[in-house]
Amino acid sequence: MQGITDMSSNKTEQGFVSFVSGGPGPVDLLTLRGKSRIERAEVILYDALLDPSFLEIFPESAQILYVGKRAKEHYRTQTEINALLVEFAHQGKKVVRLKGGDASIFGRLSEEIQSLEAAGIPYEVIPGVSSVTAGAADLGLSLTVRGLSRQIIILDGHTILEDERSWMGMENFPGTIAILMGSQKTKELSERLIQKGVLPTTPIVLLENAGNPNATYTVSTLANTMLEGMGKQTKGPGILYVGEALRPLLENTKTIQNVIHSASSFLESL
Amino acid sequence: MQGITDMSSNKTEQGFVSFVSGGPGPVDLLTLRGKSRIERAEVILYDALLDPSFLEIFPESAQILYVGKRAKEHYRTQTEINALLVEFAHQGKKVVRLKGGDASIFGRLSEEIQSLEAAGIPYEVIPGVSSVTAGAADLGLSLTVRGLSRQIIILDGHTILEDERSWMGMENFPGTIAILMGSQKTKELSERLIQKGVLPTTPIVLLENAGNPNATYTVSTLANTMLEGMGKQTKGPGILYVGEALRPLLENTKTIQNVIHSASSFLESL
Repeated sequence: MQGITDMSSNKTEQGFVSFVSGGPGPVDLLTLRGKSRIERAEVILYDALLDPSFLEIFPESAQILYVGKRAKEHYRTQTEINALLVEFAHQGKKVVRLKGGDASIFGRLSEEIQSLEAAGIPYEVIPGVSSVTAGAADLGLSLTVRGLSRQIIILDGHTILEDERSWMGMENFPGTIAILMGSQKTKELSERLIQKGVLPTTPIVLLENAGNPNATYTVSTLANTMLEGMGKQTKGPGILYVGEALRPLLENTKTIQNVIHSASSFLESL
Repeated sequence: MQGITDMSSNKTEQGFVSFVSGGPGPVDLLTLRGKSRIERAEVILYDALLDPSFLEIFPESAQILYVGKRAKEHYRTQTEINALLVEFAHQGKKVVRLKGGDASIFGRLSEEIQSLEAAGIPYEVIPGVSSVTAGAADLGLSLTVRGLSRQIIILDGHTILEDERSWMGMENFPGTIAILMGSQKTKELSERLIQKGVLPTTPIVLLENAGNPNATYTVSTLANTMLEGMGKQTKGPGILYVGEALRPLLENTKTIQNVIHSASSFLESL
């Protein structure tokens, strides 16, 4: 694949693509390394869901391309995004491909990397904060608890309902289940988990806007959620957490009732 | 529990504990928020495995306590660490509890939080880069691949071998398995995974020193590893990744043979 030739550029050096994991939202959950790559980028391609606070660190000289798949107007297919990365690198540009959360989890990173490898373009991947752990931090909880929860499974709420392969031998699953992209299907997911052997009394938490100042959560049991569902409180993305590690929220044994809000209001007072 | 009274302090305000997830190693994989908390900390309690690059951002005025559980000389039990956090907060101090990786994964965060809640001390949890995703970034791979790997399981290599509960219905498991703390037991773990139904031809990767400049990896199949094991190349911590998402490494179809080293040497040349 030959890139578009940039006639205005005299560059002969090879381009380079930095995949930067932007974290769950606010720019202050970006890594220092990610920030340094953004600050020296010549081209930045970014997705939907990027927090406006990122605009403050985009260099004025950089070419900024929004390639989010959600907006109709600026819609780019994955193939188009892959081709753009190759084209800019062939122009000798320092390209940042900015992704939400961590690039290695549900970010279609492998498809973009394959295009670069096919074209012989060097790249790096900068890891970031996943929304899965950012949500746990919002809740003031650990996903693993000694003697109680020693495993974490991260699932895609779309394919879990479509995929009939019996991957879950989940009776007595000694861990925490985190389901991304499933917050619209809380009834169906709870029913399926109970069918697979997870106890109906197991706590389930719907955490919305992980890592963001407007993070909020709802807590229930699988049995209740199977019957009544769980309504979203916001329009933001939601993560479902299931497992005994969440029980302190269900039983209100956390003395800080809502860690999310008490921590942020406390910090504002500092 | 009453804290030790600091007679030299006139502070009357309430202390605050920030759990800061330090990421997998180098300080530039810390978040901006984590850095800001460290820079204004009055007390910092940190664990083993902290990269020396962190020392550069510790404020000179802060009291720095090494509470790692690995060193014999400065050994602190978990109970002692919990008590220290409460004591410093009762003195009105801004305390940073710095943990490796992400605090919500195998970090014993819940035990420390319980102590703070029992004492009525406010806190926040700042998420960070997990070694699980940092290792994937080192490999230039995504842990999820559309149509191939839609799930991630994070396991503790110690308890997986001790725990006989049949949590793995893993025939045709459509995802990636990441095993922490299991790099000394590659034979046993591979054997167990095959017994549980994972195909013997499945790729397994031992990634050492995730997120660090000396990251390195070894790749094989479960069948080979069950027979021959996998020797560690370094003394650093190792992560085992198992699943079809790793196949490009096994088949050398990645044109950049060793992303880890080629990316870092390329970057040095910039």
